[in-house]
Formats: sequence, C-alpha cells, structure tokens
Amino acid sequence: MKEIKVGIIGFGTVGAGVAANLLEHGEMIAVRTGVKPVLAGVADVDITRDRGVNVPKELLTTDSTGLIAKSDIVVELIGGTTIAKTFILEALSQGKSVVTANKALLAKHGVELFAAAEKTGARIGYEASVAGGIPIIKALREGLAANRINKIYGIMNGTCNYILTRMEREGLDFEPILKDAQQLGYAEAEPSLDIDGFDTAHKTAILASLAYGEWFGMDPLYIEGIRDISLTDLRFADELGYRIKLLGIIKQDADGDIGIRVHPTLISKKALLADVSEVFNAVMVNGDYVGNTMFYGRGAGREATASAVVADIIDISRGMADGCRNSIPAFLPGKLFRGILPMAKTENRYYLRIQVKDEPGVIARMSAILGDKGISISSFIQKEGQSGDNVSLMILTHLTREELIKGAIGEIEKMDQVREKVKLFRIEDIS
Amino acid sequence: MKEIKVGIIGFGTVGAGVAANLLEHGEMIAVRTGVKPVLAGVADVDITRDRGVNVPKELLTTDSTGLIAKSDIVVELIGGTTIAKTFILEALSQGKSVVTANKALLAKHGVELFAAAEKTGARIGYEASVAGGIPIIKALREGLAANRINKIYGIMNGTCNYILTRMEREGLDFEPILKDAQQLGYAEAEPSLDIDGFDTAHKTAILASLAYGEWFGMDPLYIEGIRDISLTDLRFADELGYRIKLLGIIKQDADGDIGIRVHPTLISKKALLADVSEVFNAVMVNGDYVGNTMFYGRGAGREATASAVVADIIDISRGMADGCRNSIPAFLPGKLFRGILPMAKTENRYYLRIQVKDEPGVIARMSAILGDKGISISSFIQKEGQSGDNVSLMILTHLTREELIKGAIGEIEKMDQVREKVKLFRIEDIS
Repeated sequence: MKEIKVGIIGFGTVGAGVAANLLEHGEMIAVRTGVKPVLAGVADVDITRDRGVNVPKELLTTDSTGLIAKSDIVVELIGGTTIAKTFILEALSQGKSVVTANKALLAKHGVELFAAAEKTGARIGYEASVAGGIPIIKALREGLAANRINKIYGIMNGTCNYILTRMEREGLDFEPILKDAQQLGYAEAEPSLDIDGFDTAHKTAILASLAYGEWFGMDPLYIEGIRDISLTDLRFADELGYRIKLLGIIKQDADGDIGIRVHPTLISKKALLADVSEVFNAVMVNGDYVGNTMFYGRGAGREATASAVVADIIDISRGMADGCRNSIPAFLPGKLFRGILPMAKTENRYYLRIQVKDEPGVIARMSAILGDKGISISSFIQKEGQSGDNVSLMILTHLTREELIKGAIGEIEKMDQVREKVKLFRIEDIS
Repeated sequence: MKEIKVGIIGFGTVGAGVAANLLEHGEMIAVRTGVKPVLAGVADVDITRDRGVNVPKELLTTDSTGLIAKSDIVVELIGGTTIAKTFILEALSQGKSVVTANKALLAKHGVELFAAAEKTGARIGYEASVAGGIPIIKALREGLAANRINKIYGIMNGTCNYILTRMEREGLDFEPILKDAQQLGYAEAEPSLDIDGFDTAHKTAILASLAYGEWFGMDPLYIEGIRDISLTDLRFADELGYRIKLLGIIKQDADGDIGIRVHPTLISKKALLADVSEVFNAVMVNGDYVGNTMFYGRGAGREATASAVVADIIDISRGMADGCRNSIPAFLPGKLFRGILPMAKTENRYYLRIQVKDEPGVIARMSAILGDKGISISSFIQKEGQSGDNVSLMILTHLTREELIKGAIGEIEKMDQVREKVKLFRIEDIS
C-alpha cells in the first residue's frame, strides 16, 4: 500500500481537525481508497498549546519549510493572503501538491497559484474553501460537468445564516443578535468579513470561476451584506411568503452573459433553500440537463472542514499512487460565457419598503414615478393601524432592470413625504 | 485534445438523452475538462423510431458487438439483467470501460462485473444508478471518503415520492393516485418494482456497499413498499408532526453492525428531507466528521440521468487521457463493519394504528401487553368523536427492538376487540 506523507501548516481549529482525521481514520481511508495518507507533521509558531488532538510530539514543528520538504502533500491552513501564499508557492515550486481552505487567497490570487502548480505538475485541492464539508467543488467540476450551468444560489456563510435565523425566530433586531453571536463564538469580534458579504463573495467568485471557465477574482462581483436587514423587513417578507437569506448568486442569461453577486434576497418559504437554517450552508445548482440540485451541510467548523480537506488529500493521493498527478487540474481556463453583466443591467424583482408621511397623493406620486420607468408593480401594501406620520409602504415589483429601480428610488427619496432611505431587497423566484 | 469514442447501447429515453448531451455539449465538456468525449454510435434493435434527438444516421446501428469494438467507453442503457450483462461483460473483456445506470444488474451481479473489469483494467461508472442526476456515488466514494458513515437516508424512488406527495396534498387514498400516476406516465403499468420498494432497495444496496466496503447484493436487505400507507395514516402522522416517506435506510451502530432496509418511515416535518416532494430524490448522509449532509435533485428522467451518465464518461475519459485507467476503482472491497443486523434485532421507534371496538379495559390490556415486553409509550391517542365500534388508537413508542414490537402486535391482534391487522410504521428522528 502506497503511503502519502501529509504535512499540515497551521495548527488552528481546522488544522487540528485534519490531524485528528488522519490519525483516527488513516486505516479506514486506506481500506476505502487503496492508498494511505499519513501525517508527516504539523507546523505552527505555537506548538505547545493544547489543541484537543493527540499529535505525537515528534510530529510537531515550528519549521514549515522543513515540513514542506519532507511532505508529499502540503495542507495550508494558516489563512490570510500573505504567509499562506508564500508557503503555498514554496510547496508548489517543489512540485508538492497543496490542499487549502483559503477562499480569500484563492479568490484573489488563484491565477498565480494555478500557474505555479501548472509549472511543476503539482495539484491544488480547495474543496474546503467553499461551503465547508459539502463536496460542492467536486460536484460542480465533476458531477455536473455535463451541464451548462444556468444558476447557482448559495447560502455559504454560517454566521450570517445563524444571525438571520435567530432574528426571525426570536423576533429580535440585527444588533443584539450579532452581539450575542459574538459572545457565543458564532461571529468574530471584527465581523465585517462575514456580515458585509465578503466571505460569501470569495466563495461565490470561486464557484463562478469553475462554472464558466475564467478565474474572475473579486472585481466582477456586486456585494451587499446583511447589516441593513431589519426585523421589520423579515416580518413583512414573512407575511408575503418569503424569507430573507444572504445568497451568493450566479446566473447566465440567454445571451451567455453572467452576473455574479452577493446580497440579501427574498426567497419563497416553499423553496428548499429557505429551510436551510442556523449555521448550515447549502448550494443550489441549476444545470440545463440535471435541472435543480441542492447540496446541504455544515459550512464551517473543525470536523466538517477537515472532512473536505481530507477528501482533497485522498483525491491527490489516489492520483499519485496511480502516477497521474494531473488527473483533475485545479482549474482549467476556457471561456464559457460572453460577458459580465454589470449589476445595473441585471433584471430582478424587488421588494421596496418606503417610510412615508401619509398624505393624499403620496401613493399616486410614487406609482407615477415607477410607471414612468416602466416598472410594473406586483404587490402594493399599506398596513392599517400605523400612525399617519411614519407609515410603511411595501412594494413588490415584477422583473425590471436594476438601473431603472435605482433611478425610481432616487426620485422617491426626493419626495417630501418620504422619511428615510428606501429599503431595497431583491427577490429570486426559486422553485 | 484527446478524443474518447463513446458507444451507447440502448436508444431508449436515457440513451437518447446521453446522445443529445454529447452532441450538444461535447465542445463545452472539452473546454471544461481538457478531454473530448465523442459519440461513436448508438446501437438498438429499433433504430428507425424517432427519439427526439438528431443522431446522424451513420451513427445508428443494430450491431452492438460492432459498436463495442470501435468504442473506448461503452454505455449500457438497455436495462434488465440478461442481455445488458452480456454486453457489459463483452465490453469489459476487451478492456473497454463501461458506464451504466442499471441498478438492478449492479446490485445483483456487481461482484462478477467488478471482477471482470479488474481483470482487464477497465472501469465501471454507475453514478446514474442511484438517485439519477444527483452525484451521490461520487459524494460518498470521494467527497465524504474521510468519514465513518453513521447513517444514510434516501428518498430514491420518484414514483413513490410522487404518489405520497399527491396523497398528502389532495387527500386521496393510494389506489386512485396510483391509477392517475400510471395514466400520467409517472408509474409503470406493472408498478411493483417501484411501489413495493425493490427499486429503492437496489439503490440502497449500492450505497451501503460503497459505505461499508462489501458488495452486499440484495440478501441482507429488509424491504417494504408503500401499498399499505393509507390516507388515514398520512393524516394522523401529519397531526403528530410527521410525514411518511419511503426511505432507504443504512445505519451503523456503536458495535459496528449495520442494518440495511427500505420501508415507509415517519420523519419530522421539520427535517429538510421531509420537504423533498413530487418526483425529486434526496440522500442524507451523516458522517462522523462532516455531520449531516443532504444531496437533492431529480432522480430520474432523460436529461437528469444523462447528466450522471456523462459525468462518468468524463471521469473515465480524463483518466484515459492521463493514462491512468484505474484512478478510481469501481469498487474496492475492504470490510468496514462488523456484521449485518437482522431486522428483528434493529431498534426503532414505532407508530402503531390499531382499530378497536371501544370497550372498557381495551387500553389497559394493550398497555399491559406493551409493558410486559418493556416497550415504553411516548404518545397514546384516541380521538374523540369516532363511533365506538371501530375506533382508531395511535401509539408512538420510544426506541424498542423490532422483535419485541412484532411480538406485542401478535398478541394485540389476538384481542377480540381488535378489528383489523395493526398498522405499523417506523419512525426515524432525523434532525
């Protein structure tokens, strides 16, 4: 049985999980796959702290470069886009394949990393970079490779989904739930990466790149986070039959143009995706042959992420045992789209919440503004029993272009009776 | 670009879908994977009927043997366990890799087929044999390979799920819905394979084999279909917070013993799996590292099944292009369990519906029978407003052994006041 030496750089939460998995399940993996990944070492600046896993002392080291030299596969779990990149390039330059969960690094520097791998015939595995334990990279690259990808919708940030689930269930607003989530360890002290949508954006960029054959980086993405979602909006959405989720959205239109974006989205409560709650992740992929598929599981955490990292280790190990390092290239460029649709040119349905002073003619004026832009209203609700000074109007629109609705909102906000910025959320009709 | 010649045997629904996919998406697949599968021919006894796909006439043939000889990969889509097997063995003996959707053949004769493939270094792809377009074979064999598999729950027969969904939504009983499903083409004229659970059982046997490293065949399976599910039971289940689904269930206990079975099962309406409706399939896999995952999509049909068949074609083609035919063996034996738990020894929660003549002492007697077996009751319901001559009693039990509940039912059915056979369904607590 061929043994493959695995070196882990970064003894944090996920690093400890990967070490534990290899130590606990090495034999099982050998039985199941015919090749045995063996823990060659774990490198970290701090190798004395207890990580809850019994790694033999002689396998712990502070010498990452030394560990790279003696490993067949290098697992990068430091995070960040500086030292992590240095170590990965060092490993690739020596022809060592790399497995990483580093979505930020991949999204931003993927092209450079893949080129470095290409040069030496090394492989890069990054299953763990998107949606944790869910094998979505494999599904998209291999399992659904026979499909033109029409749409991808992903709930890919556990922190955001946890906050939204609790707001909805407990009837509390964003700020207090965020604070509680921080105390419970479900949100970072500096939560921006998660709640402003950047983490979801990194993952969305990776999925879009795989689906359409160009490594996009972050430039083409439109990104909005969840800070602006209020309990009021969740409740109105609920009454209208919707939930609000932070989605990564990738869509290709009939002309071949694609839009890549991250924003809070109203989806029907009847959609399976709407039932994905708490820290769970799910990615829905619509392919022209397969139709709708959905992949669900834990998007983060020590064990789930380790599951994905070790899956990559196994794939690469199998290839090495068979002498075909490149059986699945990390990324194959080949343009499968026409152009990128700027956000302003995308077509969406919209939910608007407008706070107004209830005076005669307000609704007529608003309708006229929307009508002038050719925006068709599918639902218009003014609740009874609100004080006339600050009344909520909800408008749901039919499909219209983003630039048109933004223009209309600009005019609506100029009205004397409009009390605050208009709330806008997009609606996706997911079956 | 390496071209791989693909020959399809069987020009039925799925065969036409695979031909259409290769003709339509061959170039896209080449861009995406670096290797190009090319349609070498389609063989069938009838090559004149219109199949809704424009296969060039010169590629149609009645000569399967000739097509095998000129193909690199042979796709078997005839179905059945006789001629299909002959053609597969013929292809494998020539070292041609085979892709098939034939679950019955695989479940029953997998060992023989894998041995034949092993002999010549050919590969066998069977992603399409389980849950149609959902890449569940790949997920289980590769994506989740780092996990000890604790549980698998699968809704894997679209006909059954369609019938149950309609019974529930329309409030109609099994027989009229089955008839309507037959007229609409969602159920076969001879529906036994589907509704008596055998099709689900074939798929369950394949997943169990992959999870635990032994090709089980059908012998270890306990199988019950959906004929006995009445509207009454669906309604009572609904009131109690459950739906009834036909599940393939694979579970490993703490001792390493596994149970493999197919039967109608009550699952909480809050479980994501309970929301899988109509003809859709879903497989939930619980692994010790990854936790709960779920894979959802279309389980049958021309396009979805073609998506899975072509995924296998791509995998094998990639391997051939790289010169590593065996990178993922079709099946690797290696026992990852202790023994098979016979159904009588499994522990379950149960739903019992007992039709009784309402006389003093009936409930006392029934409770005594259950109590004597050590069976603990979690819920006991007798509805008001039923006529005293034929009253429904529902009992939900805590976990107990199958042989104990069966013994208790035997005694309950001997009671004078019990009007008909006791209905028994098992409950799974799926979160």
